[in-house]
Amino acid sequence: MILGNQVEWALHCMTVLGRMPEGVQVSAKLLAEFHGVPKEYLSKAMQALAAAGLVNTTPGPKGGYSLSRAPSKITMLDIVEAVEGKKVTFNCQEIRGNIPCKGKPAKPTSVCTIASVMYKADNAWRDVLRKQKLSDMISSVIEVVPEDALEYSNNWLFEKN
Amino acid sequence: MILGNQVEWALHCMTVLGRMPEGVQVSAKLLAEFHGVPKEYLSKAMQALAAAGLVNTTPGPKGGYSLSRAPSKITMLDIVEAVEGKKVTFNCQEIRGNIPCKGKPAKPTSVCTIASVMYKADNAWRDVLRKQKLSDMISSVIEVVPEDALEYSNNWLFEKN
Repeated sequence: MILGNQVEWALHCMTVLGRMPEGVQVSAKLLAEFHGVPKEYLSKAMQALAAAGLVNTTPGPKGGYSLSRAPSKITMLDIVEAVEGKKVTFNCQEIRGNIPCKGKPAKPTSVCTIASVMYKADNAWRDVLRKQKLSDMISSVIEVVPEDALEYSNNWLFEKN
Repeated sequence: MILGNQVEWALHCMTVLGRMPEGVQVSAKLLAEFHGVPKEYLSKAMQALAAAGLVNTTPGPKGGYSLSRAPSKITMLDIVEAVEGKKVTFNCQEIRGNIPCKGKPAKPTSVCTIASVMYKADNAWRDVLRKQKLSDMISSVIEVVPEDALEYSNNWLFEKN
């Protein structure tokens, strides 16, 4: 059970878009070149972010992506679920319903003990991602990356955009 | 990111093996019939449990599986990891290393902010499963399933074994 690479790409792209001045859009092509990842696959992730309403997009040669709302209003879970889907990581097939038991299954409306713990674990995973805002991630990037390196990469984006 | 069906099967089979009297082994064929799942795929899950040291197995026509230790010494995480592997759910490819930044990457030894949150979420998921023992699951099954239904299914297993 491993997340696709596009989750990592989307998270990084969102931190970049969140650092752009208002009104500036960045193309998928440029985001791909910036991160050194394949444009075709990144485009799909960006389209998924747009479909989830996390980014605005303008088509055409001058088009690109920008955040649809403030980074403090977007969580890591929003981004991960936009790309990976919202399906719970445990797919209960209710195999207990197949067990020979004289036509007397366990309370049929109750959730299976096994499934309930698996759902609890899934929720714990999502809770961590829900508590982390995009704005927190951007603050952390600004804190960790040396100022001149950040300026250089920002200028690289502005010049190519 | 969804776990394979064999995780559910393995968890159910372990609760069955945990209810068997000491010394009784149950074959993969019978466990498959009991749960209404394909024997070939279940066998692979049972072999994974054996490889992880969670069950003992005896080959041959009279062979089968039994727990290798007390249900209180086996966690749900042990079972899930035996079948699904221990790899972290987020595969960080360190794409930040590709970002143009004048040859001055962020402190190279530090974990990327994005990856650190993803790892924290992964740990939260595992922690829930680590806290749940197989003995807890068995107690819950005994509590939820009506006594006569449990007796019927146990007898079914003993007669066919």
